Amino acid sequence: MTWANGVKGVLLDITGVLYNSGSCGGTPIVGSVEAIQRLKASQLLYKFCSNESTQTRADFAAKLNKHGFDISADEILSPAPVMVALLKRESLRPHLLVHPDVLAEFSSLDQSNPDCVVLGDCQEHFTSCSLNQAFRVLLSMHADNRKLYALGAGKYYSENGELVLDVGSYARMLEFAADCTMNVCGKPQPAFFEQALQELGVKASECVMIGDDIVSDVGGAQAMGMRGVQVRTGKYRADADEPHPTVKPDGYVDNLAEAINMLLTSSSA
Amino acid sequence: MTWANGVKGVLLDITGVLYNSGSCGGTPIVGSVEAIQRLKASQLLYKFCSNESTQTRADFAAKLNKHGFDISADEILSPAPVMVALLKRESLRPHLLVHPDVLAEFSSLDQSNPDCVVLGDCQEHFTSCSLNQAFRVLLSMHADNRKLYALGAGKYYSENGELVLDVGSYARMLEFAADCTMNVCGKPQPAFFEQALQELGVKASECVMIGDDIVSDVGGAQAMGMRGVQVRTGKYRADADEPHPTVKPDGYVDNLAEAINMLLTSSSA
Repeated sequence: MTWANGVKGVLLDITGVLYNSGSCGGTPIVGSVEAIQRLKASQLLYKFCSNESTQTRADFAAKLNKHGFDISADEILSPAPVMVALLKRESLRPHLLVHPDVLAEFSSLDQSNPDCVVLGDCQEHFTSCSLNQAFRVLLSMHADNRKLYALGAGKYYSENGELVLDVGSYARMLEFAADCTMNVCGKPQPAFFEQALQELGVKASECVMIGDDIVSDVGGAQAMGMRGVQVRTGKYRADADEPHPTVKPDGYVDNLAEAINMLLTSSSA
Repeated sequence: MTWANGVKGVLLDITGVLYNSGSCGGTPIVGSVEAIQRLKASQLLYKFCSNESTQTRADFAAKLNKHGFDISADEILSPAPVMVALLKRESLRPHLLVHPDVLAEFSSLDQSNPDCVVLGDCQEHFTSCSLNQAFRVLLSMHADNRKLYALGAGKYYSENGELVLDVGSYARMLEFAADCTMNVCGKPQPAFFEQALQELGVKASECVMIGDDIVSDVGGAQAMGMRGVQVRTGKYRADADEPHPTVKPDGYVDNLAEAINMLLTSSSA
């Protein structure tokens, strides 16, 4: 018995699992293009489940496909569209501190006279100026009602082979400075995983999440009753992740190709 | 009996008390130039006690004096020189994420192969790039021994009439991202206030701190057994400060001039 037994649905993180982000569109992780082809040709249900918030899903899919993948925007679950649906449901008008390339996802929203702040990964657009602006919007709200939403809760990720601070860290700064509590839209938020399960149409117990983030991917999935498997690619770090104090993955794999091999071997057994 | 009775020593915050920082050297707060003249002409002992970390004390004094103050660098206690003394004592080699204009204070230190990170208020020099660099230095250290020093712990301050994020907020982000605990050099750190009291040569019970920061100035001083008085200038905000859940100042004054009036009236009574 391995973590792969009886799996019907697969949730896949993208960055650090399918490819490593970086300049010139990043680089695919060895074996991952073929692994996704084999997954798609199998009976397994799958959904890409990413906290990517620096671009629209359409642009993200197009970037991936240049590496040889064959992924469509609607196969990707990402925080921005889920956030937009929530803002509409609650009739909220956001101040957006998000990457310019993802603004298009929010174009249907009223952004005048903002009553909440939405923070995405802005990369180099995180500046003292843009952060101060978002901070002032938060502080202008009543102290008991400062609404801060973060598109993901990651502390850091790997880009061009180097670790960079992720949106969760910036959100933590604003939380601290404005004495408020952020709401996360994205992994490891239960509602985000629930939406993925619902779109996939499988039970949590029959689903595995494959990711490089020990907390957001593995821990988040396990908290939902799914299995969580960590790849030893992307931001994986042996010294920090394998002895993690609270999260123990259901399995480790060297890379996505090994994970898909185990799944396909197991399901055909 | 008011907070001013029996005071022998006065610690004065500068930014938000003597002047408001901003473009073109900022603007003095009405009445503060004359108030400092009267303080200097009195029997009261005094020390400027600032968390300013964007410039050297000499440059800071020169900037203030353009507004008509008569302040020398050695009348100012600020975090950078205290930090330098600590780094030398502990034989530490810092990675400096500090404002370019304060680098001169650190010139006597070995900065090769860093084994700690020192964070000051970098203003517009806080960029995703400079923050990522400092983060990577922290993460390169053993998880149990990530040394992060912050030149101050303020959440935010007022500049050009607008609130801006202070070094304490950025330090909180790095703390969170790198799973470490910052050491603060500056208010409200007890050792920083102790050095001020020692340089002043008065007992804590005979000393008052006058500042615009309810936590760093007022709360920090009170925790040392000093009195803490908040000015209603600078970053003071009635709605957030007066109902503060944990810190109750020994007194409020509309501005520095009122504080000095009360002190001089009280000491001559």
